[in-house]
Amino acid sequence: MTEPRRLEGTVRVVGSGLLGASIGLGLTQQGVDVVLDDASPAARNLAIDYGAGRAARDGDAPVLIVVCVPPDVTAEIVARELVAYPEALVTDVASVKVAPLRDLVAGGADVSRYIGSHPMAGRERGGPISARADLFVGRPWVVAGHDGITYRAAAPLEDLILDLGATPIEMTPEEHDAGVAVVSHAPQVVSSLMAARLRDASDASLGLAGQGVRDVTRIAASDPALWVQILGANSQRVEEVLRELRDDLDDVIDALAAPSDPGALKTIAETIGSGNAGVARLPGKHGQSTVFTQVVVMVDDKPGELGRLFTEMGEIDVNLEDLRLEHSPGAQFGLAEVSVVPEHEERLIDDLAKRGWTVAGR
Amino acid sequence: MTEPRRLEGTVRVVGSGLLGASIGLGLTQQGVDVVLDDASPAARNLAIDYGAGRAARDGDAPVLIVVCVPPDVTAEIVARELVAYPEALVTDVASVKVAPLRDLVAGGADVSRYIGSHPMAGRERGGPISARADLFVGRPWVVAGHDGITYRAAAPLEDLILDLGATPIEMTPEEHDAGVAVVSHAPQVVSSLMAARLRDASDASLGLAGQGVRDVTRIAASDPALWVQILGANSQRVEEVLRELRDDLDDVIDALAAPSDPGALKTIAETIGSGNAGVARLPGKHGQSTVFTQVVVMVDDKPGELGRLFTEMGEIDVNLEDLRLEHSPGAQFGLAEVSVVPEHEERLIDDLAKRGWTVAGR
Repeated sequence: MTEPRRLEGTVRVVGSGLLGASIGLGLTQQGVDVVLDDASPAARNLAIDYGAGRAARDGDAPVLIVVCVPPDVTAEIVARELVAYPEALVTDVASVKVAPLRDLVAGGADVSRYIGSHPMAGRERGGPISARADLFVGRPWVVAGHDGITYRAAAPLEDLILDLGATPIEMTPEEHDAGVAVVSHAPQVVSSLMAARLRDASDASLGLAGQGVRDVTRIAASDPALWVQILGANSQRVEEVLRELRDDLDDVIDALAAPSDPGALKTIAETIGSGNAGVARLPGKHGQSTVFTQVVVMVDDKPGELGRLFTEMGEIDVNLEDLRLEHSPGAQFGLAEVSVVPEHEERLIDDLAKRGWTVAGR
Repeated sequence: MTEPRRLEGTVRVVGSGLLGASIGLGLTQQGVDVVLDDASPAARNLAIDYGAGRAARDGDAPVLIVVCVPPDVTAEIVARELVAYPEALVTDVASVKVAPLRDLVAGGADVSRYIGSHPMAGRERGGPISARADLFVGRPWVVAGHDGITYRAAAPLEDLILDLGATPIEMTPEEHDAGVAVVSHAPQVVSSLMAARLRDASDASLGLAGQGVRDVTRIAASDPALWVQILGANSQRVEEVLRELRDDLDDVIDALAAPSDPGALKTIAETIGSGNAGVARLPGKHGQSTVFTQVVVMVDDKPGELGRLFTEMGEIDVNLEDLRLEHSPGAQFGLAEVSVVPEHEERLIDDLAKRGWTVAGR
């Protein structure tokens, strides 16, 4: 983060939503000259007020243009920018990568100066008010290379990514879209479908909800307007994943309809077993697949108590790998489930108990 | 937790897995005479060594028997205990409630002394080694009443639940099984089905995985053997939920297959919108549906740093409502997403920044 800045020259950012304004803020703080543009002058001026850049002037000659507009208009705006600034490299940050390139090529755009990209940075909504210079720090940022652009022509995009503290990851547009279909778009649909079942559940049923259903349905709170665009633009890949999932779902439904039929319980066991195998493939913290042990500690529900717990974990010299908080209904305390490497479990439990903490079980 | 003990007399616990041994430990610590039994003498002796109770003796006259065995043998063991101890109330802790009662009635058991129950206490696996006296503290514990037992006859079960620090929740067996089908059993299947899709994903795709897919698939790591029993015993209710889900899934697949057809995008928007409505019905922390604001703070990846953060949050007098930790791939720090009530957001951001913390964006 203290490395010297790589980008030289003006960067033009088109679209001043969360991503555009955050890119503008981050670059401006590094001393880069940032021009901000937006179809809505009010939105542009708000982002400029937040320090995300300046208004365009005649004679601006950007080296790099970053198009940060909704997926359905990305190709159109990229094409317009390629024509308007015939010396600049143009990129976009849409969460699909095949469709924009295909549309640009079909429209005869000069894709020797276009390379798509996609920062994997938190939530994809919120206006300039939510923007932060640090939004991309430590995040992967996909660079979707294609055969029509040279390595040298694409260099300013890598500079931008590194200047913003993100990590460039190279893959083809097809690899990218297949990847996000399985790790982002299909999970969104599945989470929404499950959450929809809660609409008609009784209050008593919902009172039994534990952490599991909360985790499965957390992203179901996402913005429908945005997801219509994302899913529409990556429809084929997402459909493939969901069709496979439906085939398995049909098998489970058949097994549940006749659980005493031969093979029914085996189908159910294989479903859960396949899930075991799949989830184990997700890279763990620090990029490793590590299994952590969970220890549950009761914490009074008042400011500073968690601080005391983690300070004491520091004194015991046990590193916290993950944390999940659970408030007990009707109780004046919460349960903190801390994940640690298995070698530390026994020492942590013993030392916390000696210090007066109630270590609850799992 | 400092209330006087309610239970009088001996409690017999059959089955010394996580739940049975934890019940035994909790009651023993309250001074209750606990008899532990298990089909495996070795498992029973291990739990006794852990302090979860004593071995059975001739002449034991328990007031309450708690059957803590796998769902598929629950009814059989309950029936045996009802016959062996004709004065005792018998309960079980299986995660389905319709099937055991039905089987007992069909077998001619004296259900005027049987009432099923289900503690909603974390993971349903692990042997006596994982047992804790505090396993049930602050957790809901369903009491599945039926018309064949009087209020007075069921009283020892409520005493047990309160003595263990849990909160009794009354519902019928049918209400319970419908409830857990939608908030526990169907989410398990959905999570497993989604996780199964990750088996064949490329490493590059998996590298794009963010918090969303991790949340959706977390419970996919569950034990297949246990879930075969649970899903098999509640098959009809789970099947109903999954059939509804499949109907919606079919609609989404059709829409994705032809996204430019009339109504296709509306179907996708309604899918996400229905998920919004469903997830909003989940009771929030402290039983309220509260929306919290998230603030992301960069934290060095070493022991004690999180402690310092939360100590300072306590000094600022902002209460932490939820927390999510994210380690940045390849970076020497993590991102702590802290949830606070919206009124505290600005003060928290300002005060943390003044104290030198890097507050990243969302």
